[in-house]
Amino acid sequence: MNATATPITDSQSPEAIVADMGRRARTAAKTLATMSSADKAAALKQAAAAIRADADAIKQANATDMENGEAKGLTPAMLDRLKLDDDRIEGIAAGVAAVAGLEDPVGTVVSTSERPNGLKMQRVRVPIGVIGIIYESRPNVTADAGALCAMSGNAAILRGGSEAIESNRAVHKALVKGLTEGGMPADAVQLVPTTDRAAVGAMLTSAGVIDLIVPRGGKSLVARVQDEAKVPVLAHLDGINHTFIDKDAKPEMARDIVVNAKMRRTGVCGALETLLIDRAYPDPAPLIAALSESGCEVRGDADAQKLGANIAAANDEDWDTEYLEPIVSVKFVDGLEGAMAHIAQHSSGHTDAIVTENKDTADKFLAAVDSAIVMWNASSQFADGGEFGLGAEIGISTGRLHARGPVALEGLTTYKWVVHGTGQTRP
Amino acid sequence: MNATATPITDSQSPEAIVADMGRRARTAAKTLATMSSADKAAALKQAAAAIRADADAIKQANATDMENGEAKGLTPAMLDRLKLDDDRIEGIAAGVAAVAGLEDPVGTVVSTSERPNGLKMQRVRVPIGVIGIIYESRPNVTADAGALCAMSGNAAILRGGSEAIESNRAVHKALVKGLTEGGMPADAVQLVPTTDRAAVGAMLTSAGVIDLIVPRGGKSLVARVQDEAKVPVLAHLDGINHTFIDKDAKPEMARDIVVNAKMRRTGVCGALETLLIDRAYPDPAPLIAALSESGCEVRGDADAQKLGANIAAANDEDWDTEYLEPIVSVKFVDGLEGAMAHIAQHSSGHTDAIVTENKDTADKFLAAVDSAIVMWNASSQFADGGEFGLGAEIGISTGRLHARGPVALEGLTTYKWVVHGTGQTRP
Repeated sequence: MNATATPITDSQSPEAIVADMGRRARTAAKTLATMSSADKAAALKQAAAAIRADADAIKQANATDMENGEAKGLTPAMLDRLKLDDDRIEGIAAGVAAVAGLEDPVGTVVSTSERPNGLKMQRVRVPIGVIGIIYESRPNVTADAGALCAMSGNAAILRGGSEAIESNRAVHKALVKGLTEGGMPADAVQLVPTTDRAAVGAMLTSAGVIDLIVPRGGKSLVARVQDEAKVPVLAHLDGINHTFIDKDAKPEMARDIVVNAKMRRTGVCGALETLLIDRAYPDPAPLIAALSESGCEVRGDADAQKLGANIAAANDEDWDTEYLEPIVSVKFVDGLEGAMAHIAQHSSGHTDAIVTENKDTADKFLAAVDSAIVMWNASSQFADGGEFGLGAEIGISTGRLHARGPVALEGLTTYKWVVHGTGQTRP
Repeated sequence: MNATATPITDSQSPEAIVADMGRRARTAAKTLATMSSADKAAALKQAAAAIRADADAIKQANATDMENGEAKGLTPAMLDRLKLDDDRIEGIAAGVAAVAGLEDPVGTVVSTSERPNGLKMQRVRVPIGVIGIIYESRPNVTADAGALCAMSGNAAILRGGSEAIESNRAVHKALVKGLTEGGMPADAVQLVPTTDRAAVGAMLTSAGVIDLIVPRGGKSLVARVQDEAKVPVLAHLDGINHTFIDKDAKPEMARDIVVNAKMRRTGVCGALETLLIDRAYPDPAPLIAALSESGCEVRGDADAQKLGANIAAANDEDWDTEYLEPIVSVKFVDGLEGAMAHIAQHSSGHTDAIVTENKDTADKFLAAVDSAIVMWNASSQFADGGEFGLGAEIGISTGRLHARGPVALEGLTTYKWVVHGTGQTRP
């Protein structure tokens, strides 16, 4: 089923498989790094067409996974994530084609300068090299992540969940068929052929072989990856996001933002988890009422509890909890300083927002809050690569280096220094 | 001797010391992150003045280290690195003042865009946070690294070699005196008070406490740091640098560049280690002769050996050796492709150069060679932050993420997303 040039035999150890895939990925990466944007885009369009053409084979493979999943007793939610139908396969193909339309950062000159001795220095964007993607049951990641890596000139090593292995193989086969027809190396996007979990460990410790690991999945996966990895990881573990309603907030805007940030979709990483309200905010009761009316359970500090009979007491744990459910914790704070102190202690560094009509207050908040995304008068549910205009997203990073917040093509590149001389020697 | 606000008692474990310093560094970093460039520069100028004013105390402390070092039998080279005299102390102070004159990247808007819904997205440069510097016997690093971190708004945790502890304490005391007089927090630059080597291990594993580790020292230090660190590391292990003399190189330029790249200073990381010569280059003998005449030992492949009686045979190990001495390995290759294949296999990704008059050949080399620095018609000895116009250098990175090549202030920053809305909620 493995569509790469030289099939790997099952008798190899996971470490040997990953090492071999890494060598082939490095070779492929050298070719990808010098492909033109137009050539990469053309190959991705071929891949989208190949996925459409292979829809029946993909559905058939998916049916096997679904049967096995049902037999194994996967939850309905897991089975839903696993399921591929015509609409979803079309969505996967359209996603790959959309990546082909994104602006290619490779080759962009980041900075340029000339020294007094005539040396010309440029920093030029280049692909990172080999990206490892570790994901769970969603087979669409096979195509999404593979396309983003290939378009940014990186080779990808994909390792999806065992419950989706047949679907992943079918999607991968179509993807690679299209990419190679479009002129990309067969090893541009490789799928780890074994479902042995030791392969994940081998990827995580393969420093120098894989340059960056992107985990795509639930918290336990991300935690394992962050804990075990010797390779740099681009990820977020938690989205414990705050919205602070300043005393100068417009009540109607505050209410709409809070309800949207919490309730639009409660399971996304940009969802509001803790609402901070300035003690000087004139009329907080409607905020709480709007959350309750929208079906949200409210847990509050002593002051918040006074605002409604149905408000449970928040305990210490609530301030550090990412509910990902229709539950919100509410705390009253002493102005901007109180809000910033709470956020500094409890934020996971993902997305924190302020609602205020006072520009000075907003500027202080935006400058001092040290999260990947800080927002003024907007719903934290906008924390998403598409909404940020990136066209796609390989992940959201709460790390402090390289790339932060939503990451798409540019975050999959780095730079190198290119120096043009005319024979200069150093005195 | 520790000049920070709350002296640490000797009874704490290295882990507890590092954790406590980390907490204080994080607090200091929050203040540093919002200081204006002018205020940071003023504090650094105060620090330079304080180092000058404390010159006698620094010399006295250094004399103790020198005595202890002689008693311990340090080599003359190590003692020379340790030694501080009036000139060197003035150099340290001038270095700190020079950092105050550098352009501050913090607050720079990296990108800006507006979405159809009116949301304004900016990426704004912010400090990384807490930087750990691990170094050996050069006490000047205390001031150099501390100044670069502080000017870029980062808190620094410095851990110098035990043989320089008294000198480091004296330099650190003066530095912090000046910085605090200039309005910086006392914990902006902290020096690990213990010489217990376990403190290094504690720093390397303090993910979330220290955001980035920069090792400054020899290969064994860097190797230990890269091997043990759970925290991201900015470093280079090796500088196995190549210069390729293409068939279209100007002979005189080729000779000057090769001799300079190898012999100007043989102990620097940008020094040439392997010379690759195109088989079609018309007259290679003068290149080899110039190296020999300049006092360089030449080890060559069979073809190179034909060019001189005193050329030893290079073995397989030579192609992977960073000599850091007046020794060079020479290999003849089949044109650009041969050079690029050798470099892909043996380069440490530091600095690789081509000498040619043919722009097409140069462009291919510059695009395909995957090193932090690639050069055309220039000596690889220019691989240095000062020569690149960065004004200083915290280190040179051969990593593939975040920052590559010479790193100064900008490489000590990252970005955050700042989103300005007018009440937008996500549909």
